[in-house]
Amino acid sequence: MAGIKHLVMAKFKEGAAVEQLVLDMKKLALELDIVKSFEWGEDVMKNDKYSHGFTHTFILTFDSAEDVAAYIKHPRHVEYGKKFRAGTEKILAVDFPTVIDKIRTA
Amino acid sequence: MAGIKHLVMAKFKEGAAVEQLVLDMKKLALELDIVKSFEWGEDVMKNDKYSHGFTHTFILTFDSAEDVAAYIKHPRHVEYGKKFRAGTEKILAVDFPTVIDKIRTA
Repeated sequence: MAGIKHLVMAKFKEGAAVEQLVLDMKKLALELDIVKSFEWGEDVMKNDKYSHGFTHTFILTFDSAEDVAAYIKHPRHVEYGKKFRAGTEKILAVDFPTVIDKIRTA
Repeated sequence: MAGIKHLVMAKFKEGAAVEQLVLDMKKLALELDIVKSFEWGEDVMKNDKYSHGFTHTFILTFDSAEDVAAYIKHPRHVEYGKKFRAGTEKILAVDFPTVIDKIRTA
């Protein structure tokens, strides 16, 4: 899916309400029209050498960098971000215009 | 796109042949049928606090964990992996079955 991806990875704190945090991010993505897609998953490789401790990956796709900026500044995201940061030991985030070189056709 | 994603992030070494390494990964993804999609991009947020120094993200999608394993072990990937590691200061990699909660419809 083209556009620009906002990719976030998390290492949650011991005892964090992970399921609720994921559910709330899903709700946020579904409620805001500027979020064009929301995909996520939990690492199954579980090799700290490569994961750097990050367990969850969240990928949100937007049409433009302006839409990512609007999402970041959105009051609903700001509110969610506080809860997310409180529950995480570390966060990784990058934004990248997506080059699609191969796409599933079947 | 459902399936399982093999996500790799890289911080390249100063002077690494980044364009060639990206091109070779694209070739690999195009040549191997088990790779269902290949998307990548370069971080534009450029905030080290969040990127942890990683500049490039590569997302390969497979149908199953078995296909990811076959890819990792494939001689062409093993050969490429040597060049990739030689050109990178650090690598992050996770594999995650993808939950798609929202998808672009227009």
